[in-house]
Amino acid sequence: AILEAIVGLPKQPLKGRHVLVTAGPTREPIDPVRAITNHSSGRQGYAIAEVLAEAGARVTLVSGPTALPAPPGCTRIDVETAREMLAACESALPADAAICVAAVADWRVREASATKLKKRPDASPPTLTLEANPDILATLAAHIERPSLVIGFAAETGDVVREATAKRARKGCDWIVANDVSPGTTTFGGARNQVDVIDENGCEVWPELDKHAVARRLVARMVEWFASRKGQRI
Amino acid sequence: AILEAIVGLPKQPLKGRHVLVTAGPTREPIDPVRAITNHSSGRQGYAIAEVLAEAGARVTLVSGPTALPAPPGCTRIDVETAREMLAACESALPADAAICVAAVADWRVREASATKLKKRPDASPPTLTLEANPDILATLAAHIERPSLVIGFAAETGDVVREATAKRARKGCDWIVANDVSPGTTTFGGARNQVDVIDENGCEVWPELDKHAVARRLVARMVEWFASRKGQRI
Repeated sequence: AILEAIVGLPKQPLKGRHVLVTAGPTREPIDPVRAITNHSSGRQGYAIAEVLAEAGARVTLVSGPTALPAPPGCTRIDVETAREMLAACESALPADAAICVAAVADWRVREASATKLKKRPDASPPTLTLEANPDILATLAAHIERPSLVIGFAAETGDVVREATAKRARKGCDWIVANDVSPGTTTFGGARNQVDVIDENGCEVWPELDKHAVARRLVARMVEWFASRKGQRI
Repeated sequence: AILEAIVGLPKQPLKGRHVLVTAGPTREPIDPVRAITNHSSGRQGYAIAEVLAEAGARVTLVSGPTALPAPPGCTRIDVETAREMLAACESALPADAAICVAAVADWRVREASATKLKKRPDASPPTLTLEANPDILATLAAHIERPSLVIGFAAETGDVVREATAKRARKGCDWIVANDVSPGTTTFGGARNQVDVIDENGCEVWPELDKHAVARRLVARMVEWFASRKGQRI
């Protein structure tokens, strides 16, 4: 139904919409040479940003460190840490939609060292005390300038749908796009992705697609969502 | 003197030599989505591997995760962790020279989790207990199949030359190529590099050069070193 829905649509169905996309990992410093990071090539988020721009949206792409070129037509803001990512997102508001694809580090090191920690043969290795990072998805979903549509991505292992459904409720977002990143799956860095989309109506299982196809299908779903709300906007 | 020395040399002065190069960061898993890693684009190591291959050497490039294509003429072996990197290096021996450019994680997490660590609002963040990784440079420098020339790279902050000189002695390698990675310098990921080369005669300060020029100068110095030892090889 979604795929057919876009056939009759205008070429730039998101013209006039501003969409915020986060992508890539964040990098939380331990010292000047070491960091805690997340697996994320940024590919899925960049593909979504690119398709949104093709659909006519004004796109702000807040990106952690990746090796990817900025997608055509997007404004990219480069950040390193979760706190920098949140600040960049808040600065980008207001937006009609926010899609949080970035693999944000849940924790940072409590006291990052300004100089390189030395490995001493006679000393035991350091212990890293972590503290919680801000939750970007939950913050945007509860924001006074909350975008009308807030979409989160969830990289899960184990019972993916159950975890993602709980995450949707906890974060206060509208949709969760969940994927399984158990060892043995090739989502990270790979070209393909199998996702489940969870909204207030339940769970939609999508087939394995390449990341651009996931992006096109997600953007088509967004177009449909905005179209169905015409006249309802505040 | 080094630059002039290569003028009269044959086109492939390292023909018949096997050189092992490590490059890039290593990535030490915390769980399936998180890891401790080092800043390293892999550019300097890849540039050295490329110039060595141009100089006729057979090059084995053992590389942590980077976004770079394999340099022409090199055999690249992809690894993630320090232990995998060491195993790949030992398998590649014997070699005439080893150049350890990789930013190897000194520590790994003692017990990596097979499932994603959950962020619980009611629980405190985890504490990561680290343990020492094998020292690849020191292991190669003390190896029963020790390459004739073992070169290490040192990313330091503070008193770079003093730290690097101590490191050379501690590791048992022949040369240390040291650079300053203090916050504010742009060595990591950048195109340029200012290094000091420390050997048994002391410290040679090189000007800031692009990473390919550093590679050419280092390879020229290796060619000179091998030439000066002709007839001395065991």
